[in-house]
Amino acid sequence: MVEKQLRTRTTLKWREGALTSRGDSVATEEPLEIRLGGQRFTLTMRTPGHDEELCAGFLFGEGFINSRAELGEVRSVRGPRGEPEPNALDVVLAVAADGLRERLKRNFAVTASCGICGKTSIDAIRRRIEPPRGNAAIGAQILLALASRMRAAQEVFAATGGLHAAALFDLDGRLRAIREDVGRHNAVDKLVGWGLMNELIPFARSVMTVSGRLSFEIVQKAAAAGVPILAAVSAPSSLAVELAEEAGTTLVGFLGDSSFNVYAHPARVLP
Amino acid sequence: MVEKQLRTRTTLKWREGALTSRGDSVATEEPLEIRLGGQRFTLTMRTPGHDEELCAGFLFGEGFINSRAELGEVRSVRGPRGEPEPNALDVVLAVAADGLRERLKRNFAVTASCGICGKTSIDAIRRRIEPPRGNAAIGAQILLALASRMRAAQEVFAATGGLHAAALFDLDGRLRAIREDVGRHNAVDKLVGWGLMNELIPFARSVMTVSGRLSFEIVQKAAAAGVPILAAVSAPSSLAVELAEEAGTTLVGFLGDSSFNVYAHPARVLP
Repeated sequence: MVEKQLRTRTTLKWREGALTSRGDSVATEEPLEIRLGGQRFTLTMRTPGHDEELCAGFLFGEGFINSRAELGEVRSVRGPRGEPEPNALDVVLAVAADGLRERLKRNFAVTASCGICGKTSIDAIRRRIEPPRGNAAIGAQILLALASRMRAAQEVFAATGGLHAAALFDLDGRLRAIREDVGRHNAVDKLVGWGLMNELIPFARSVMTVSGRLSFEIVQKAAAAGVPILAAVSAPSSLAVELAEEAGTTLVGFLGDSSFNVYAHPARVLP
Repeated sequence: MVEKQLRTRTTLKWREGALTSRGDSVATEEPLEIRLGGQRFTLTMRTPGHDEELCAGFLFGEGFINSRAELGEVRSVRGPRGEPEPNALDVVLAVAADGLRERLKRNFAVTASCGICGKTSIDAIRRRIEPPRGNAAIGAQILLALASRMRAAQEVFAATGGLHAAALFDLDGRLRAIREDVGRHNAVDKLVGWGLMNELIPFARSVMTVSGRLSFEIVQKAAAAGVPILAAVSAPSSLAVELAEEAGTTLVGFLGDSSFNVYAHPARVLP
C-alpha cells in the first residue's frame, strides 16, 4: 500500500553551507474523479489508496448516503482502450431516484469539491446533525497519549513529512484505524468511509484525532459520523467551535503530550 | 484589521494535571460568497479581511481575469433590509461577454471552490502557465532567513496559533507583503490579489513563502502570478513537484533556519 503513496525524487538538500543531491520521498498527489451512475460528480486531489473508502466517506459526509447499503456498488472505470483508470471510480447508489434528487437538491451546493458552499448550506448541515449517542468520556491522561500514538502509526508521514492523518481510538486509547492523505478532508473521509463500509457508524464511544487544523468542515464530517470527541494537534477556527457547540461534539485543540485545550462540551474529558 | 480576524472564547486548558478556564483567541472563519454580475459564483470559507484581494486573486488564479483592468468593479452586497452583508461581494468584470463565456467554459470545472476538477482542467492549467520572466536568483543564506521572518510578521497567528500565511519577499529578503487566512489557498489568493490590485504582477524578482504544504494548487497559483521562487515550511506533494518542473518554478520545501530542500529548478538558489 505504501508504495503508491510515495514517489521518489532527486532532491537537492542544503545542509551546513552546501547543496547535495539525494534521493527523497514525497507524498503522492493525484486527482480522483468520482462518478455517480457514470456521470462525473466531483473530483478531489488525493493520495492514492483507500479510494473506495474515500468515495464512501465523502458521500456520507455530504449527506448523499446514510448507510453502507445505500452506497450500492463502487465500480472501477475503464479507459478508452479498456485499460483500468486508476484515478476514477463510478458509484451506483442504491437510493431511490426521488430520494436522491431531493438529496442532490439539498446538498449539491455543499459538495462541488470543497465541501462548503453558502450559508444556506451551512444551516442545512447544522439541522442535519444529531447529537452523539451514548455516554462517551475519556480520561485526560489517555487523551494526552493520542497525538504521539497517531504520529507513530503514520507510515507515509514518516517517509515524507507531508501527509495529514485522521485516526479513530477507543476510549481506552487503543487505535482502531488510521488513514493518511495529502488533504485534511480526505483523511477524515477515508476514515469515515472505513467505518461506513464496516458498519461501525455512528462512531459512538470513540475519539477521532486529526493532524491538521480544525475547520468547520472537519467538525461537520466528524459530527455527521457521530464522533463524540474530536481532537486535533492544531488550532480550531471560530466556526469549528460554534458548530461543535451546536452539534454536541467535544472539541479538543492543540493536543500535545502534556497539555491540550477544550473548546466545546468539556464534560466528556475526565480529570 | 486584526480585531475581526480573531474571536475570543472561553477555553478550558489542561496543564499539569488540571483543567482551568481562560479567555483565548481563535481565528475567525466565515463564508465569503463571491458573485459575478449579481449571480452567485462560488463560496469559500475564509478569515475576514482583504476580501477584495481574495476575490481578485481567486479570479486571477483561476484564469477569469488577466489584469487589474479586467477586475472591473467590486461591490458590496446589501441584505434584505438594506444592511451591508459582510460575507458577500459582487464583482462586475470588465471582460467582453464572448471572452468571459470562453473563460467560464474553459475554467468552470476548475473553480467550484477547491480549485481543481479533473485531468482536463489540470492539462488546461499547465498549458496556460508561462515560465517566470527575468533572471531571479536568491542566496541560500537569505532564503534561510525567510521562514522566521514570515512567522514574525504573522499578527493573527501570534494570537491564535491557527492561521496560514503567504508572503512575498524581494531577492534581498525584504518583506513586501504578507496575508493570513484559515485557508492555505486563500492566503495565496489574497497575496496575489494584492499584487494584481497594485499592478505588481507578474511577481518577477521575488520569492513567495507559504506556511503550509505545497500542493498542486499552491504551485499553480504562484506560477500563474509569475513567481520565480516558491518556498514552503512544509513538504511538497508529487504533483506539486511535477508542475513546478513544467512551469519553470523553483520549488523549495522544508524551509528552516539552517536547512531546506530544492525540488525543482535549483539554478535560482545560489550557494
